[in-house]
Amino acid sequence: MGGDHAPQATVAGALLAAAELDPTHSITLVGQAARIEQTLDTLLHGEHAALAEHRARLHVVDAPDVIDMAEKPTAAIRGKPNSSMMVGLRLHAEGQADAFVSAGNTGAQMAASMVLLRLYAGIKRPAIATIFPTGKKPVVVLDSGANVDCSAAELVQFARLGSVYAHDMLGRENPAVGLLNIGEESEKGNAVSKEAHALLAQSGLHFVGNVEGRDLPAGFNHNGPLDVVVCDGFVGNVILKFYEAVAPLMVGLLVKAGMDQQRIMAALRDLDYSEHGGAPLLGVRGVSIICHGRSSPRAIKNAIKVAVQAVDNRLVEHLGKRMEDAAGGAAA
Amino acid sequence: MGGDHAPQATVAGALLAAAELDPTHSITLVGQAARIEQTLDTLLHGEHAALAEHRARLHVVDAPDVIDMAEKPTAAIRGKPNSSMMVGLRLHAEGQADAFVSAGNTGAQMAASMVLLRLYAGIKRPAIATIFPTGKKPVVVLDSGANVDCSAAELVQFARLGSVYAHDMLGRENPAVGLLNIGEESEKGNAVSKEAHALLAQSGLHFVGNVEGRDLPAGFNHNGPLDVVVCDGFVGNVILKFYEAVAPLMVGLLVKAGMDQQRIMAALRDLDYSEHGGAPLLGVRGVSIICHGRSSPRAIKNAIKVAVQAVDNRLVEHLGKRMEDAAGGAAA
Repeated sequence: MGGDHAPQATVAGALLAAAELDPTHSITLVGQAARIEQTLDTLLHGEHAALAEHRARLHVVDAPDVIDMAEKPTAAIRGKPNSSMMVGLRLHAEGQADAFVSAGNTGAQMAASMVLLRLYAGIKRPAIATIFPTGKKPVVVLDSGANVDCSAAELVQFARLGSVYAHDMLGRENPAVGLLNIGEESEKGNAVSKEAHALLAQSGLHFVGNVEGRDLPAGFNHNGPLDVVVCDGFVGNVILKFYEAVAPLMVGLLVKAGMDQQRIMAALRDLDYSEHGGAPLLGVRGVSIICHGRSSPRAIKNAIKVAVQAVDNRLVEHLGKRMEDAAGGAAA
Repeated sequence: MGGDHAPQATVAGALLAAAELDPTHSITLVGQAARIEQTLDTLLHGEHAALAEHRARLHVVDAPDVIDMAEKPTAAIRGKPNSSMMVGLRLHAEGQADAFVSAGNTGAQMAASMVLLRLYAGIKRPAIATIFPTGKKPVVVLDSGANVDCSAAELVQFARLGSVYAHDMLGRENPAVGLLNIGEESEKGNAVSKEAHALLAQSGLHFVGNVEGRDLPAGFNHNGPLDVVVCDGFVGNVILKFYEAVAPLMVGLLVKAGMDQQRIMAALRDLDYSEHGGAPLLGVRGVSIICHGRSSPRAIKNAIKVAVQAVDNRLVEHLGKRMEDAAGGAAA
């Protein structure tokens, strides 16, 4: 029920995913059952008539409450235990679903995921990981908005989480982890980034040093290609939203200069990270994928495929192992 | 002597500026005199032969020492009192020059400006203001790199400085000041941005609330068009460098897709803020313009013109008045 175009975009995305996924997979649509059934009917008698054979692999679970996009997270999850957010995450927590995907209220998804899925030992708050398209390979950037004031130790946790994600989901061996900062040298930055630099250098991760703002779109820093970039959620969120808005600005200028919009959009399509399939919430014991509120059916479909990949590649198990190892190392 | 292409780019830029400025203005080139004279000769007997008539308005003042781009600022200004940076700023401090422009070591320029020009009462550190091209009118963003850990009170000072700059230099009446943050609502953000929001609302400035990352390229937020955006120098620097690098990434993708590079560059030319004429260091009692190390002669020329405009519009006097008023208001 979450997202700017719910339930149409979500339901259509699930239908598209069912059609593309291995037939052993099924999708549970959680929300106001009557509206979901009606939306499915409309789609299957209209633009998605060709997908009718996949209808049987979509199940509907009723959740009468809806958490509004602007509701305060904690109040919302306490006051609406029968919302699609809470019911869906409970299905995942109880093992009736292997993963959870939502385009709803991000803060509520975070809070509900922490409560129902719980955090790995030693983790205080989860991080939102975003896949940034770059001039080279995509880079995992975290935190991109969940934590506004981060300690250096938290940035190291993000690095561990992001490193496992880059390995399992993007196939990167020994992922190169960088620290977003304002200069190449280790002594550059604010108090937190200087301390984080020192901690990352001793973390056992493949730490490749500071990453400047200009290195992020490039996909590499002075030491080579990047797989993971860590930063606090304030900077991460500002950069992410900035990135989203720069492309339309440039496209607008090019179109105004008489260039062909369709050709431009096709050329820049790889930069539209919103189509890359949602942002995982890392640090909780489960697969909780956050989609943009304005996700298209294609973006929802991709997010569902990311969730399936996370399950197939045993991401949760690997994250748990890495966090345990880190906690053991710290205790030793 | 500063910058990646010194002294060629700097000298050529000064020559271009002399040709465009009112003939009552003259430019003093500070650095290793023999190299500067030789560079001038080469340019005037080569690509800039047509500008020979303006040679008489370029004066050379010898400064034997050169501060390297990578030198530590404080050590550099102490150890090299006869560097072009120190000699040039001393000319300005002593009233023999009305403004100072450099493409050299930014940290050294900041430190030397603080020592020689001194700060306005109540200001702890100056801020670097950058003109961001947007989809609407350009926006003054500060701090873009001088201060990595800022208090809320410092962000308010940046707002006052930026507001005067936007008025005097961009002709904005009652400039709209926004606070870079991660959400529209006043309670969003980290500890510093929440406090800054409250202080800005009571500052007497035309405060228009939070500005999200996506609002910056757009040039407006939920309350309308923006003239000034304040942020700490960590976020400001990351965003600035990110912005610089995104355009080349997009241009690369478009060219790869077979589109015409020259046409693209022409359409996006307004976005190249490095050509907008340098970033003023605000908070010091003088005009100290910081240019990018890799400034082209055109960028240097534009920076000199910005310096002249600052003098003509009595920017320093207005900044001093505003800072005095704010200090008086705080005492009252």
